[in-house]
Amino acid sequence: MVNGVDTLNEHQIIKEYFSDVGSAYLVEQGIRVPVGDDAAVIALPKDKESVISVDTSIKDVHFLESMHPSDIAYRSVSIALSDLAACGATPSWFTLALSLEKYDSTWLSDFKRGLIDISSELKIPLIGGDTTKGNLSITVQVGGYVKKGTALTRKGAKTGDSIYLTGLIGEASSALDAIKKDNLVNLKKSRYLRPEIRFGVSSKLVGIASSTIDVSDGLFQDLNHICIASKVGANIFLEKIPTFLSKSLSLDEMNKGDDYEILFTSDKKNQETIKRISKEEETPICEIGLITKEGEVQIITPEGDSLKASPGYKHF
Amino acid sequence: MVNGVDTLNEHQIIKEYFSDVGSAYLVEQGIRVPVGDDAAVIALPKDKESVISVDTSIKDVHFLESMHPSDIAYRSVSIALSDLAACGATPSWFTLALSLEKYDSTWLSDFKRGLIDISSELKIPLIGGDTTKGNLSITVQVGGYVKKGTALTRKGAKTGDSIYLTGLIGEASSALDAIKKDNLVNLKKSRYLRPEIRFGVSSKLVGIASSTIDVSDGLFQDLNHICIASKVGANIFLEKIPTFLSKSLSLDEMNKGDDYEILFTSDKKNQETIKRISKEEETPICEIGLITKEGEVQIITPEGDSLKASPGYKHF
Repeated sequence: MVNGVDTLNEHQIIKEYFSDVGSAYLVEQGIRVPVGDDAAVIALPKDKESVISVDTSIKDVHFLESMHPSDIAYRSVSIALSDLAACGATPSWFTLALSLEKYDSTWLSDFKRGLIDISSELKIPLIGGDTTKGNLSITVQVGGYVKKGTALTRKGAKTGDSIYLTGLIGEASSALDAIKKDNLVNLKKSRYLRPEIRFGVSSKLVGIASSTIDVSDGLFQDLNHICIASKVGANIFLEKIPTFLSKSLSLDEMNKGDDYEILFTSDKKNQETIKRISKEEETPICEIGLITKEGEVQIITPEGDSLKASPGYKHF
Repeated sequence: MVNGVDTLNEHQIIKEYFSDVGSAYLVEQGIRVPVGDDAAVIALPKDKESVISVDTSIKDVHFLESMHPSDIAYRSVSIALSDLAACGATPSWFTLALSLEKYDSTWLSDFKRGLIDISSELKIPLIGGDTTKGNLSITVQVGGYVKKGTALTRKGAKTGDSIYLTGLIGEASSALDAIKKDNLVNLKKSRYLRPEIRFGVSSKLVGIASSTIDVSDGLFQDLNHICIASKVGANIFLEKIPTFLSKSLSLDEMNKGDDYEILFTSDKKNQETIKRISKEEETPICEIGLITKEGEVQIITPEGDSLKASPGYKHF
């Protein structure tokens, strides 16, 4: 709908672009009142706990304006969902608070396309939101469920646990560099534009992983969050870190973030189970280090030297 | 904590300003994992449904930068909570996605004060959030509960139902005018700076109201949302609309919004019950009109003329 109307009312924007995203999944996700009323009403599953997270994506910080609006939408929802995966939760719904500089029907239609893509992939409906006038900014709230008492957290890593990583490091930051340099906005399937969250693996880590986090700020920085929360240290073996196209990356390059892989720790006895999960989910899972007593992340070179990582992505 | 550090990391900001807001209420609200992990984990009450809403507040649109940061925080959370009241839900938790231009410890400390105020009043903890660099913008997600199958919605108004309004119209917009003109940033208790949400009344409307909405965009516009959702019309009697200081307001002035009162409809047989609720909650509730068959909001003057209202607040 365009009608030449430039000053579309919020309620019309919601109706046109956001009222039916994933509406096919409302019933199975227990959404009793969806987009369009004052609030969404959700039936609650038995024997589960609710898992909630929120992430804001801002132009030039979390995405480039030159990106296709459908990729901006997909990426914004996806990176919010990554926090649910880190808890071992199954996603169920999302809300969208969108600030727009102006009403642009083409941009909004493209943006909606990306919302529909991620919504269809995971069978999660958009259940509410707010549209405001302001600098382009996208805040996505996600909700999901995990079996009572089984949520994975950053706490729980123990001395002697192995450290594992799904996928590899550096693909997203390499894609971002390519986009910046060559304006390759159609680089469709990269982990920067369309990060695929590892829900298959993460849901199977419940009861297996002793601690988990998603790699958003940078591998070493995020491992450090596990160490702080679990009151342990970590040794990472440099040559064991899987990198994009097996490139040799500097520590800084490895710590750029945006990978949205799952970093987790697990007792050594679970080695075979983890190999099986990796096979079943067709997702590489590498053992990259060991949890230690000392409260620091040490990076061990093949020569046995111990290095310190840079602090990773700084938000301010 | 200041330490002369200007480029504070997001994780330090969260720890310093947002990790302990309302933490005294975590246990009673069933929050198993609060701020600081990847996501919040929430135990779910039996026989209830979850109610979820999100609202963004943006500088110069939803608040003035000259306002005290504690009022900006209070107002941002409060107006998000208003949607839960409109559903008859009891609030349980909130999350905060905050975009800041720069790190300013004084501003953040003052902002935290307002978060603590609203959190303490309603006994709801802050359970998660995201802090990003960008234009000042505050997105608040709120969650609450309502007894299974009893959530109030905009649907359900029936021909012949009475239309009721809590409180009065115009106080918030009059306070906003005063703030703009005289820079009265210390006008502490106004409904603009510190809107008190009518949870006392709204929770008692479950089973009584046939439809509800909160007055945010404007009295007539919000009533129109009820009419559209319920497929009915409405007659409002102009002289029955309660106004701030009993001022005579133009239709445009009545339709400015920001009142955050509860507008609801109810069968005539509930008149005495509604009077009792008003008395118990020490909140005025006025009958201001009648639901009709025709799909329009008509404003009836004391002379019997029928007027049409302006469309209220335009978001774009």
